[in-house]
This record gives sequence, structure tokens and C-alpha cells, in this order.
Amino acid sequence: MNPEWIGYIAATLTSASFIPQAVMTIRTRDTRSISRGMYVIYTVGIAFWLVYGIALDSWPMIYANVVTLGLAITILVLKLRYG
Amino acid sequence: MNPEWIGYIAATLTSASFIPQAVMTIRTRDTRSISRGMYVIYTVGIAFWLVYGIALDSWPMIYANVVTLGLAITILVLKLRYG
Repeated sequence: MNPEWIGYIAATLTSASFIPQAVMTIRTRDTRSISRGMYVIYTVGIAFWLVYGIALDSWPMIYANVVTLGLAITILVLKLRYG
Repeated sequence: MNPEWIGYIAATLTSASFIPQAVMTIRTRDTRSISRGMYVIYTVGIAFWLVYGIALDSWPMIYANVVTLGLAITILVLKLRYG
């Protein structure tokens, strides 16, 4: 299998995975068992992955990290709001 | 900055981010506001990122995804156990 396709499948899965968490958190407004530390560190880390993807000219990484960054920030903002 | 270093910083942050979540979940046994769907999809996705990292011979990606896979599986197992 072409490595780029493996990358696209990986990108789609890890980015999409944050959708059910974001939807669940928006609906329930329950963030008690979600770690704030996780989402702070994760958001900064994804920003670095995005820069790395740009440096490698890897479109699966760029595409994945832009989407994931948006979802991670959404969950982080909800965590900061609802505690 | 050398792209590999950006990758290593990114890898360290996104992998390490799951540590506070895993520690919090192990301690509290509270998984109510964590999405099961997220961790199922995320775990499969990280397995694909690992294969992509191997295909690209990218050590930051390989290193990051082995660690993240272990942490994601830990949180998923706790979610399946505690509901």
C-alpha cells in the first residue's frame, strides 16, 4: 500500500476521533473526567506536528493537524468553561 | 530549527499529554465524560500512524506512536471497565 494512503487513513482516524468527544462534551457539558492538562499539552503538541508536517511537505500530516487543532481547542475551551 | 527537532518536540508533547489523562483516570476511576468512540477510533488511528512512521523512516513518529498507543489503550481499557 502506498505510504501516503496509510498516512491519509491514519490522519482521518486520529482527527475524526475527536469528533465524538467534542459532540459528547458540547451536548452534556460534562467535562469532569477529562484532563485539562491533557488538552493543554495536546493542543501545543499538535501545533508542533503541524509545523513538522509543513517542513516534511507531508499533506496527510498538514491536513490532519489543522482539523485536530480545531477540535482539541474546542474541547479545551469547553473544559476551561465547565471545569 | 532542524525539522527532526520540531518532530521530537511534537512527539514528546502529544505522547506526554495522555499521561495526565491516564493518571487521572486510574486515580479517580471516573470515565463518564470521556468518549469511548474517541478512544476506539484514536487507538486504531495511532496504529496506522505507526505504520506510516515506519514507511517514512521517521523516528519521531515511530517513537511517539508506540508510547501513545500504550497510553491510549490504557485509557480505553479503563473506559470499557468503568463505563
